Amino acid sequence: MPERGHHDRATIDAILDEGLVCHVGIIDDGPVVIPTGYVRDGDRLLLHGSRASRLMRHLAAGQPACITVTLLDALVLARSGFNHSMDYRSVVLFGAARPLADKEAVLRTYLERLLPGRWDTLRPVTAQEVAATEVVEFPIDKASAKVRAYGVKDEPEDLEFPVWAGTIPLTLATGAPRAAAGVALEAPSALAAWRPSQRHASTSS
Amino acid sequence: MPERGHHDRATIDAILDEGLVCHVGIIDDGPVVIPTGYVRDGDRLLLHGSRASRLMRHLAAGQPACITVTLLDALVLARSGFNHSMDYRSVVLFGAARPLADKEAVLRTYLERLLPGRWDTLRPVTAQEVAATEVVEFPIDKASAKVRAYGVKDEPEDLEFPVWAGTIPLTLATGAPRAAAGVALEAPSALAAWRPSQRHASTSS
Repeated sequence: MPERGHHDRATIDAILDEGLVCHVGIIDDGPVVIPTGYVRDGDRLLLHGSRASRLMRHLAAGQPACITVTLLDALVLARSGFNHSMDYRSVVLFGAARPLADKEAVLRTYLERLLPGRWDTLRPVTAQEVAATEVVEFPIDKASAKVRAYGVKDEPEDLEFPVWAGTIPLTLATGAPRAAAGVALEAPSALAAWRPSQRHASTSS
Repeated sequence: MPERGHHDRATIDAILDEGLVCHVGIIDDGPVVIPTGYVRDGDRLLLHGSRASRLMRHLAAGQPACITVTLLDALVLARSGFNHSMDYRSVVLFGAARPLADKEAVLRTYLERLLPGRWDTLRPVTAQEVAATEVVEFPIDKASAKVRAYGVKDEPEDLEFPVWAGTIPLTLATGAPRAAAGVALEAPSALAAWRPSQRHASTSS
């Protein structure tokens, strides 16, 4: 059960579809790593941000970038310090982004992937907001996943050592929706069931 | 309530002490971003890994690096698509790592920061394990934090728009400890109370 690399799209896509934040590496007088939201749409990630931001300027210019998504699943407590570890799933993408012209349509797709059904319930986007926003796609092309999912793996000669061994599971958990100040409406019932890995139900009602 | 940068060490250290994984950016034929565990020890991060790994070779050689830690706190659902966001806390460090000679002592410190009291209960580390491991420190020097913690911030003219607005809280939650196959011992009681942000209680009993 080694820590294994994967290049199949099913493994890669499942990790990308559960993650909420990626870490984007660019070069700007040395390496720079910036966290930002993203969604997967088919064979690409969609990212957006202020046109004024360093990250979006670099991405829109097609500079080389590396995008990494990491999901933590457990602390692994072995019988030796050496075999302590974490169970995790991660994806690393290499490539260059491309700016997209139909920004409003892409922003709609972005929100649909994150909160299905919500876009049509919102105050419509304005031309000024669209103008202030940069939207890019990043190809899922040079992509690989790493998955460690086997918990404790001790040396055979350590199995009788008298110390507890096991895992502490880790999950990105969601709490009950909290209304903003002044909101009298009930939260759409699907929002209470919203989970990072299950975004399929409409959150509009 | 803008999204604010912070340079005070109390803010930076609190984020670093809650995080379990950092994303390290290095340059190797372009930007590369690799997730790895870390702990904070005073004015430095401690990182370790296989001496054979690309990441550890780059870090031990003192190549320029950027280390980013990100904690997600909430999805923010505003009344406009434009004002949807996330509450989060992040730290970005720039600098270069330095290999440490007394590797066993540093590995002990590493585990003490993560699971206080556990090191002394474990099968002792071997010379071979120490030899296979690279241990580096990374200075907390060129460091900044970003904190968004204010939930929904809509335009004044959107406050009456008839859609629910609020947050979905996000937390890295821990489950009950799960014993590895063949472990008959009870888990140390402190492990059930272990949380990423509260690592002070001894986990050895």
